[in-house]
Amino acid sequence: MTTNAPSDRDLVLTRLIDAPPEKVYRAWTDPALLKQWFAPLPYTTSSAELDVRPGGTSLITMRSPEGNDMPNSGPYLEVVPNERLVITDAYVSAWEPSEKPFMTFILTFENQDGKTRYTALARHWTAADREAHETMGFHTGWGICADQLTALVTRSS
Amino acid sequence: MTTNAPSDRDLVLTRLIDAPPEKVYRAWTDPALLKQWFAPLPYTTSSAELDVRPGGTSLITMRSPEGNDMPNSGPYLEVVPNERLVITDAYVSAWEPSEKPFMTFILTFENQDGKTRYTALARHWTAADREAHETMGFHTGWGICADQLTALVTRSS
Repeated sequence: MTTNAPSDRDLVLTRLIDAPPEKVYRAWTDPALLKQWFAPLPYTTSSAELDVRPGGTSLITMRSPEGNDMPNSGPYLEVVPNERLVITDAYVSAWEPSEKPFMTFILTFENQDGKTRYTALARHWTAADREAHETMGFHTGWGICADQLTALVTRSS
Repeated sequence: MTTNAPSDRDLVLTRLIDAPPEKVYRAWTDPALLKQWFAPLPYTTSSAELDVRPGGTSLITMRSPEGNDMPNSGPYLEVVPNERLVITDAYVSAWEPSEKPFMTFILTFENQDGKTRYTALARHWTAADREAHETMGFHTGWGICADQLTALVTRSS
């Protein structure tokens, strides 16, 4: 299930995942777990270094089927354990400006009767960037990732 | 004394102020004090609302001699009491994107034998923005403000 937010700058994916928020949050913050679901197959995650604190850097490298590495780096702006993460690509690290501020990623993990209402909101600086991101396949890509994330956190205890 | 940083994206102003860091920091974080020095005269500061915490909003309105109000709003990214403040204009508040990410303002208050090594670093997203800011009068404007700040924190105990 994916929906567009009313805002013309936002793209949103939301799922109800049958696992507690602590577990879904851990899949986002433990590099060994994140590498198992973060890239939409056949892409893989070749490395993940996650300094999970406000101002800490998230450095995740995806690898294409052809073997090309695509690093993505940005600082966490907010860290509320088991509830909320905010990451931006306006900086490559605290506080080195990136080439182009494109989006802020706001992740929320809400407890709903022991399950997790998982919401990934991509908020762009411009409506044009939002549209480009949608055209690039936001819903499909993040949908596959959400499937992989769900499979990971629901298959073991 | 003003100098340009080696980086082509940075503008820097630094002063040694004869007052302790606590006092210079307070002049940046207490709205009643900030209003006394923040705008280069004949501009004034008509209002200041400072929610001094990471993710809190700094909302400062300057008034021109003609009576035009110019609001400036952005979140604090880092708050280290009496040592360091980081503010960005990439967001108007946490985490609403602004029209144009222009700069990040990194303020440091270092203790040097009871005095304060005060450094205001404006780090821009592009070299063109840095140049525009310099042409707009960064050094003159921030120099006047630093004089006013120095006068405020050194005149009373």
